[in-house]
Amino acid sequence: MNIFFIGAGNCTEIILEKMQNCIKKAYLLDYDVEKINFLKEKFHFCIESDFFISDDIDFYVECASVEAVKKYTENIIRNNKNIIILSSGAFSDFDFRNNVENILKNSRSQIFIPSGAIGGIDIINSLKDEINSITIETRKPPLSFNMINTKEELIFYGTAEEAIKNYPKNINVAITLSMAVESFDKVKVKIISDPKIIKNIHKIFIDSKAGKYEIKIENNPSNNPKTSLMAPLSVVGFLKKFNNSIKVGV
Amino acid sequence: MNIFFIGAGNCTEIILEKMQNCIKKAYLLDYDVEKINFLKEKFHFCIESDFFISDDIDFYVECASVEAVKKYTENIIRNNKNIIILSSGAFSDFDFRNNVENILKNSRSQIFIPSGAIGGIDIINSLKDEINSITIETRKPPLSFNMINTKEELIFYGTAEEAIKNYPKNINVAITLSMAVESFDKVKVKIISDPKIIKNIHKIFIDSKAGKYEIKIENNPSNNPKTSLMAPLSVVGFLKKFNNSIKVGV
Repeated sequence: MNIFFIGAGNCTEIILEKMQNCIKKAYLLDYDVEKINFLKEKFHFCIESDFFISDDIDFYVECASVEAVKKYTENIIRNNKNIIILSSGAFSDFDFRNNVENILKNSRSQIFIPSGAIGGIDIINSLKDEINSITIETRKPPLSFNMINTKEELIFYGTAEEAIKNYPKNINVAITLSMAVESFDKVKVKIISDPKIIKNIHKIFIDSKAGKYEIKIENNPSNNPKTSLMAPLSVVGFLKKFNNSIKVGV
Repeated sequence: MNIFFIGAGNCTEIILEKMQNCIKKAYLLDYDVEKINFLKEKFHFCIESDFFISDDIDFYVECASVEAVKKYTENIIRNNKNIIILSSGAFSDFDFRNNVENILKNSRSQIFIPSGAIGGIDIINSLKDEINSITIETRKPPLSFNMINTKEELIFYGTAEEAIKNYPKNINVAITLSMAVESFDKVKVKIISDPKIIKNIHKIFIDSKAGKYEIKIENNPSNNPKTSLMAPLSVVGFLKKFNNSIKVGV
């Protein structure tokens, strides 16, 4: 399997580590040459590269930023190639989303947005139209907000779209949920500064005509404290599932 | 899209209802002629059928029983056709599982086991090797066990394999979890008779090197009280996701 990685940071390193036995060639694109050299040294199947399109490549994987998604996606899908996107926040931009959806109508491409740092997306995929509302409640220690509150404090409550403007750091999870339920109105975001916790905790509440669901996520951080280990692992999980003849989950 | 349904009961009816606009032909196989006639009357694109293999068919969908899975799967995958299986409990039979895995080595078939009546399988797909253990705790009202306990009572605690022997009715969820984590030892089953509840509640606890996760599921029943609405909806969710160019979740 040949993969073109957009971004050569911590997430890409974890994916390369876990997929060593499945990847033949990994092309790396990053403006930071040091990151590329580090990965080339560690994984000898890595190749520094400018952006290019080739039949040789099975998947493009974006582990960089919302900006990188916006810069490269159109070219990839106009050329009928598949891309896995971690920075799903890019889809909060209506014009970008609309443009991508239009191009996809005449393309054989598929865009995969893995579950990233959260889970329970299979429940949303199953229920879709039956869903009344989804709330994602994120609790972080006060220090994350440069606060010193001793009781829990509600920092933000609003729609996914409002959250993007005010808390762009939390954007990817809210947008992944919105893309899954195919609605930017049904997803509410709650951010709480909580002195009782030391690790971030996400809780997702799904209210639907088919039942009620709650997902609690306590991720350990990766080497980069800003990224949970689960985000790159969700790309690994996707690639392994893609290759398996028996696929479990929606 | 043409679909061959094995089983023409409540689940198939729900899938047909939700997929009316996407299905061109639905072949129905069931030993109960009344069920077939009811669906033929309600959905005019339904055709009564014996089992057959044809290029005309996009998916075989099993909504019948463990026995039906065992009876038809081999023929389907030897002929490179794809099958969606709801009665995942069939895979608790080691010989069947082994046989299927061997045939798949020389087949282009894919077997899809949707999340069924549960969720959070995307978390398991992401974490896979990082998972230490999974516990599924199922709480039911005492009447479900013909009991009259006034305090909650632990009915069963053991591995998925032991649960199968003792509580075959709960088999599918435990086996879906086991197939997802690719281990029959890591999944523990807890069954509780709980007088405080009126609907079944599943809780899934995932303990892993990447973090801790908890999924709480309160399904409403479908018209058939033995089946939750979410099980057939997970097939609908899978088929819709399969047809979408943008796919969310692992």
